[in-house]
Amino acid sequence: MIVAMRPRATREQLDYVSGILRDQGLIAVSSTMDDIAMLITEQCGTPELVSAVEKAAGVDRVIALSGPQRLTSREFRAEDTVVKVGPSGEAAFGGTEFTVIAGPCAVEGRDQMFSVVDAVVAAGAVMVRGGAFKPRSSPYSFQGMGLAGLALLAEQRKRTGLPVVTEVVTPGDVECVAEESDMLQIGTRNMQNFELLREAGASGRPVLLKRGMSATIEEWLMAAEYVMQAGNGDVVLCERGIRSYDRSTRFTLDLSAVAEAKRLTHLPVIVDPSHSTGRPHLVGPMSLAAASCGADGLLIDVHTDARNALCDGAQALTAQQFGALMDRLKPVVEAVGRTLPVTPARSLAQV
Amino acid sequence: MIVAMRPRATREQLDYVSGILRDQGLIAVSSTMDDIAMLITEQCGTPELVSAVEKAAGVDRVIALSGPQRLTSREFRAEDTVVKVGPSGEAAFGGTEFTVIAGPCAVEGRDQMFSVVDAVVAAGAVMVRGGAFKPRSSPYSFQGMGLAGLALLAEQRKRTGLPVVTEVVTPGDVECVAEESDMLQIGTRNMQNFELLREAGASGRPVLLKRGMSATIEEWLMAAEYVMQAGNGDVVLCERGIRSYDRSTRFTLDLSAVAEAKRLTHLPVIVDPSHSTGRPHLVGPMSLAAASCGADGLLIDVHTDARNALCDGAQALTAQQFGALMDRLKPVVEAVGRTLPVTPARSLAQV
Amino acid sequence: MIVAMRPRATREQLDYVSGILRDQGLIAVSSTMDDIAMLITEQCGTPELVSAVEKAAGVDRVIALSGPQRLTSREFRAEDTVVKVGPSGEAAFGGTEFTVIAGPCAVEGRDQMFSVVDAVVAAGAVMVRGGAFKPRSSPYSFQGMGLAGLALLAEQRKRTGLPVVTEVVTPGDVECVAEESDMLQIGTRNMQNFELLREAGASGRPVLLKRGMSATIEEWLMAAEYVMQAGNGDVVLCERGIRSYDRSTRFTLDLSAVAEAKRLTHLPVIVDPSHSTGRPHLVGPMSLAAASCGADGLLIDVHTDARNALCDGAQALTAQQFGALMDRLKPVVEAVGRTLPVTPARSLAQV
Amino acid sequence: MIVAMRPRATREQLDYVSGILRDQGLIAVSSTMDDIAMLITEQCGTPELVSAVEKAAGVDRVIALSGPQRLTSREFRAEDTVVKVGPSGEAAFGGTEFTVIAGPCAVEGRDQMFSVVDAVVAAGAVMVRGGAFKPRSSPYSFQGMGLAGLALLAEQRKRTGLPVVTEVVTPGDVECVAEESDMLQIGTRNMQNFELLREAGASGRPVLLKRGMSATIEEWLMAAEYVMQAGNGDVVLCERGIRSYDRSTRFTLDLSAVAEAKRLTHLPVIVDPSHSTGRPHLVGPMSLAAASCGADGLLIDVHTDARNALCDGAQALTAQQFGALMDRLKPVVEAVGRTLPVTPARSLAQV
Repeated sequence: MIVAMRPRATREQLDYVSGILRDQGLIAVSSTMDDIAMLITEQCGTPELVSAVEKAAGVDRVIALSGPQRLTSREFRAEDTVVKVGPSGEAAFGGTEFTVIAGPCAVEGRDQMFSVVDAVVAAGAVMVRGGAFKPRSSPYSFQGMGLAGLALLAEQRKRTGLPVVTEVVTPGDVECVAEESDMLQIGTRNMQNFELLREAGASGRPVLLKRGMSATIEEWLMAAEYVMQAGNGDVVLCERGIRSYDRSTRFTLDLSAVAEAKRLTHLPVIVDPSHSTGRPHLVGPMSLAAASCGADGLLIDVHTDARNALCDGAQALTAQQFGALMDRLKPVVEAVGRTLPVTPARSLAQV
Repeated sequence: MIVAMRPRATREQLDYVSGILRDQGLIAVSSTMDDIAMLITEQCGTPELVSAVEKAAGVDRVIALSGPQRLTSREFRAEDTVVKVGPSGEAAFGGTEFTVIAGPCAVEGRDQMFSVVDAVVAAGAVMVRGGAFKPRSSPYSFQGMGLAGLALLAEQRKRTGLPVVTEVVTPGDVECVAEESDMLQIGTRNMQNFELLREAGASGRPVLLKRGMSATIEEWLMAAEYVMQAGNGDVVLCERGIRSYDRSTRFTLDLSAVAEAKRLTHLPVIVDPSHSTGRPHLVGPMSLAAASCGADGLLIDVHTDARNALCDGAQALTAQQFGALMDRLKPVVEAVGRTLPVTPARSLAQV
Repeated sequence: MIVAMRPRATREQLDYVSGILRDQGLIAVSSTMDDIAMLITEQCGTPELVSAVEKAAGVDRVIALSGPQRLTSREFRAEDTVVKVGPSGEAAFGGTEFTVIAGPCAVEGRDQMFSVVDAVVAAGAVMVRGGAFKPRSSPYSFQGMGLAGLALLAEQRKRTGLPVVTEVVTPGDVECVAEESDMLQIGTRNMQNFELLREAGASGRPVLLKRGMSATIEEWLMAAEYVMQAGNGDVVLCERGIRSYDRSTRFTLDLSAVAEAKRLTHLPVIVDPSHSTGRPHLVGPMSLAAASCGADGLLIDVHTDARNALCDGAQALTAQQFGALMDRLKPVVEAVGRTLPVTPARSLAQV
Repeated sequence: MIVAMRPRATREQLDYVSGILRDQGLIAVSSTMDDIAMLITEQCGTPELVSAVEKAAGVDRVIALSGPQRLTSREFRAEDTVVKVGPSGEAAFGGTEFTVIAGPCAVEGRDQMFSVVDAVVAAGAVMVRGGAFKPRSSPYSFQGMGLAGLALLAEQRKRTGLPVVTEVVTPGDVECVAEESDMLQIGTRNMQNFELLREAGASGRPVLLKRGMSATIEEWLMAAEYVMQAGNGDVVLCERGIRSYDRSTRFTLDLSAVAEAKRLTHLPVIVDPSHSTGRPHLVGPMSLAAASCGADGLLIDVHTDARNALCDGAQALTAQQFGALMDRLKPVVEAVGRTLPVTPARSLAQV
C-alpha cells in the first residue's frame, strides 16, 4: 500500500504513521515524489489498518494496491505520464507525439558524431543516442571511449540543441554522466543492478530503462519501481528483445509486452528495433509495428560508416535507410492518431 | 538443387536425370508443381554436376540453392505467391489485399454459428474459421464436434458464399475435411506431423500452416516444403506465438519472424493474434502491428457468447470488439499501401 | 474424478452413473484398465455428487482428484508402476533395475544391425532401439528404411531374444509396427499427435512416450493420459531435452523434470542423453546424472560407423565408448540402491 | 592471443610488444597472473605476427587461441585449476574433493546463524554461505541486513574456523565484503556487471561466479575472463538454473552446461540446486546428479526455521533434510572416484 501525506505534513506525523504500520508487521519504505512524502509497503494492509492510517494526522490518502507494483501502477496514477527530456522539454514521451531517438551505437570519434548526428537530425530524429561506456561480453572488446566519448556527445548536444541519452553502467559514473547528458540509459544487463537503479533515481535525470533480456514484465516494472522509489518519476521503459530458442533474429522482439506494459503502467514505453533484431532489414518493419501497437517512440542505431563500426555495426541503418524509414513511419503514426514531431533542430542541421 | 523438366518431358528423361544424380550420391525426390515435373535433392550439386544435368534431354533449368529451403525459397520463386481460396478465389493472400479470417475457435452449435458468422461478416471478414476437430492437451476436454461440426461449417459456407478454413488433425480425416471446407488448417502441434503434411499437400486444397510453438523459422519453412513437395503450392504460413520464459502473455507473438519469413519465402504469411496472446485486450494492438510489419492477413477468434465457450473463450473478441478492430485496422492497412477488401458477403449478411 | 466400477458391473450400471454425472454437467470419458471399467471426468465433482455416485449400484470407488491428471497421477496409484517389455518381460522399467536401451538412431542395413546389436548386447544393454520411420525436418533428408527397416529390427529381436523399441509416426502404421516390435516409441514431435496416442494406446503394446521439446511436465503427463485412457497402462516416459535459448548443447536436458515427474506420476521415467545433448562427450556425464537423480533407465544411440551414419551420427557413441559408459554406470547405479540387470542375451552375443 | 612475458621482463619490453600488436590493429589488454605479465588480444594474430612476437625480447611464449576465451580456456591451462578458499585453504574446489557449501539464503539474526551453522557443520559442510546484501526484485522486499549481517557472518567464521562466502552486489562494497569473508559471490543478476567483476578480480579474494539466468556458456566464461583479466585466477563457476518456458521448477537446472563448461575451462564448476529448482524435494536428486556429472561441489540453502525465513525460505532444506542428503551423497561421490572431505570443524560443532 502507499500512504501519501499532505503537502506540509511534519516529520512527526510521518513517523507516527510509520509506527502504526510497523506494529502490524509492515515495513515501510519512504519516498518523495512531486514534493509529496510517501510511505510504501510491500504487503497490502487489512481494511482495518487502511482506515486507521487514513485517520492519522497529516495523511492525505491511502492507496491499497493488489499486485506487487506500487508507484508504477495504473492504480497509483491512471493517466499516462508524459516524460519530458532536455532543458526545455525538447523531447516528450507518453503524450500524443511519437518520439524517435537515433544515433550511433557507440561514440567512436568527432567526425563520426558530426556525420551521424547531421544525418539523423536531417531525417527528423528529435533526440540523439550514443554510448560512451559500452558493456561488452568480452573484456578484450572495445569498451567505449568513456569520458572522451561523453565530451563528444555533449558537443553535439550543444551544437544541435537536441537532448542526448547515453548509457551509464556503474553507480560511480552516474554523477558525471548526468552532468553531460539529458537522460540516463540503463542497459539490459543492468536492469537488476539495483544500486545503479537507486543512484540513477537519485540523479534527478530522466531514466531510459531497458528490459532485461530475460526479465518478465513484472520484473521490468519492479526495476522501474526502484528508480521511482528513489524519488524519480521520469522513467521511460524500453523493450529491446528477449532471449528465446529462436536465433534467426538476435533476440525476439516482444511487442505484446509493449501493449501489456502500457496497460499495467502509466509510464511511457518505447522500442529498440535495432538491438532486438540485430538485422537492418528488420528495423523498418519492426519500427512500423511498434508505432501501431501503442509504443511511444523508438531508439534506433544509425551509422554512416557501418562497416568500420567498432561496436554492433551490423545492425545499424545507414543515413539513407533511416531517412526512408522516417518517411514510411509518418503515415503509420498518423493512422493510429499520433504525430511525428518536427524537430526544432531540423533547421540547425544546415548550420 | 531443383531440376525443373520441360512441360512435355518423358518419364525416361526424368529417370535418366535421376540416375545422373544418384551416381553422384544425391538422392532426388520428385514432385510436380503447375504440371511441371521436378527432381529435388537435399544437397547442392557441384558446378560440374549442375552443368551435366543442364545438358540432359528434357531438362528446362537447374536451380542450385544455398540454404536448406527448396520450393519455398525466394531463389526458386522471387515474386510473392498469391494464394486464392474459395471456389472463385473469394479470399486472396499475398497480394495487395490484407485478408481477415474470423470466427469461433470451435464450432459448438448451429445457433452459435449463425450468430458469430453474421457478426464477422457484417464487420468485414472475408473468410470464416471454426474448429470441428480440436487438439486438446487433456483427453477429458471437449474435443470438438467432429463431423457434425464440419456440417455446420459447410452450412455457413453455402449460406454466405464465404470460404471457410478448419483444422485437420490426422491423415485419415484429410479427405472429408477437404470436401467440406475451402482450406485445411494444420495446427501448431502438428507442424511436424509429416504424414499429415503430405496428405494435406496431396489433397489439392490450400493449406494454412501454423508455426510450431517452438519451431525455428527454418523448421517452419521446411514443414511448408513437405506440403509443396507433395505437389501443392498453395500454402499460407501463420505465426501464432512461440513459447518463451515469459508467461504474461500465453505465448510470445514473434512479429520479427513474420518480416523475416517474408524475406526468405515467396509464400504469404498471416498472424493469429488470438491464440498467441490469449488476451482479448492484446488482440487489437497486435493486429495493427501485424498489418504494419508486412503480414498478409489475420486469423481472429470471435465469439458472441464467450463466457460459455467450450474452448478458449477467454481470448475471443466479442462481435462489437471485432467491429471496432476492423475500423481501426483500415487506416493502418492503407498507411502501408494495402487495402482491406470489401467482402461480397457483406450484403448477404442481411439475408 | 475417476469412478471405478466393480469387476462385474453391468453396462446398465455404467450408463446410470454416466447419467448422474451428465445431469451435473460433467462429461465422462470411459476407459478400461486391468479389466476394470471406469468413467473419467475433467472436472472434480462436488462432495455431494461424489457421495451420490459412491452409492450407485456397481460402483467400487470414486477418486476425486485435485490437479488435471487422472490415470497417471500418484493419487490414482501411489506405488511405482513397473512396465515389463518383451514376451517374457525381459526388460522392466520402474522397479529396482536400471534399464539401458541402446542401438542405432536409424536402421540403415543388415550389416549395421548385426554390428551394432552385437556391440550393445556385449556391453550389457537389455533392450535394442532402432528407427525404421524417421521424422525429419526436411522432406529431402533420409526418411528411414520403413518396412524393410522393421524387418531388420525383427531379425535382431529373434536372434538375440532382446525386446526392441521403434518409433511409429502415424496412426496408420501402428498395427504393423506393433507386430514387429515389443514397444512403440512416440517421438518428441508427436507427443501431441493425439490420434497417434489413442491408436498406440489401443495397440496393447507398451509405449515409450518422449517429452515434446517444448512441453511442460503437465502436458507430457496429459499425453500419457491419452494413452492410458485408451486402455493401456504400460507407458514409460522419456525426457529428451527441451528447447532453451542456449544452443551450446542441441537441447537442454531437464533432469529436474525427471525428479518432478517421478513425484507426480507412478509411471517410469527414462532419459535420452543422446538426442538431448547431441554431443557424444556429454552422453556419459548425463547418463550418470540421470541414474543418480531417480531415472529408471536410459535410451542411448550407439553406432559402429558413426561417420557414415545417415541420421544423427554425430551424437552416437562408438561401441567402445558405450562399453566404457556401462562400466562407469554400474557403481553409480548401485550407489543409489539399484542394479544394472545382466542381460540374458549377453551369452547369445557370442553366437 | 596471449603473450606471456618472462618473469623479469621489463616495462620497455612489454611496451615494445604492445606496439608490434598495435601496428597490426590488435588492441592488447595487459594483466598479471602468478606474477607473470601478459598481453591479451581479442583477435588471433596471423602466423607471421605470432612468430614476430615470439622473437621479441622478454617474451616467454605466445598462445594463439581459436575461440573467444583466453585465460579461462583449456588451451591456456590444460589441467584443472584447484581454487583454495580460507586462510589455510580449508575448502578446495576442483581437486579430488567434492566440496559442499551450506547455510541460510540470508543472514537474518544471531540466533539463526548459530543454529543453522551448527547444523550444517554437524552434517559435514566445509564452508558456510549467508547473504548480507540481497538483490531483490522489489525495492519493498527485505534487502538483507547489510553490514550487520556481514558481522554476524564473520562471527561464525571465527567461531568455526570454516571459510564463508557472501554476495557482493556493487563495486563500492567489494572492499568491506572482502575483508569480512573468504570468498566473494557474484550473483546471477550481476554476472554481466562488468565493473563489479573487475573490482572483485582486483580484490585478491576467490570469486564464486554464478551463471546469469539467461547467459550462454560462452558469456559465463567471458564473465570469468573479466575477473581473471583483473589478475585473479581463483574463480569458481556456479550453475544455478536458467530461464526456460517451463515453470514447473523455478529455473531449469542445466547440468549439461556443467559437463560442457568443465570441458571448455580449467576452472572449477559447482551447482546450486536450491535456487535453480526452488523446491526442497528436488534439491536431493539434483545434488546427486550434480555430483555424478562432474561438478566440483554444491551450494545449498539450509534453514532451521524455514517458515519464518525473510527470503526464499520455501526452497531451503531443514537441518534434518540436509543431514540425510549428505549421507546419500557420500556413496555417489565415491562412485565417481572422489571424496567428501571431513570438515575440521565437525568437532568444533560440539563446542
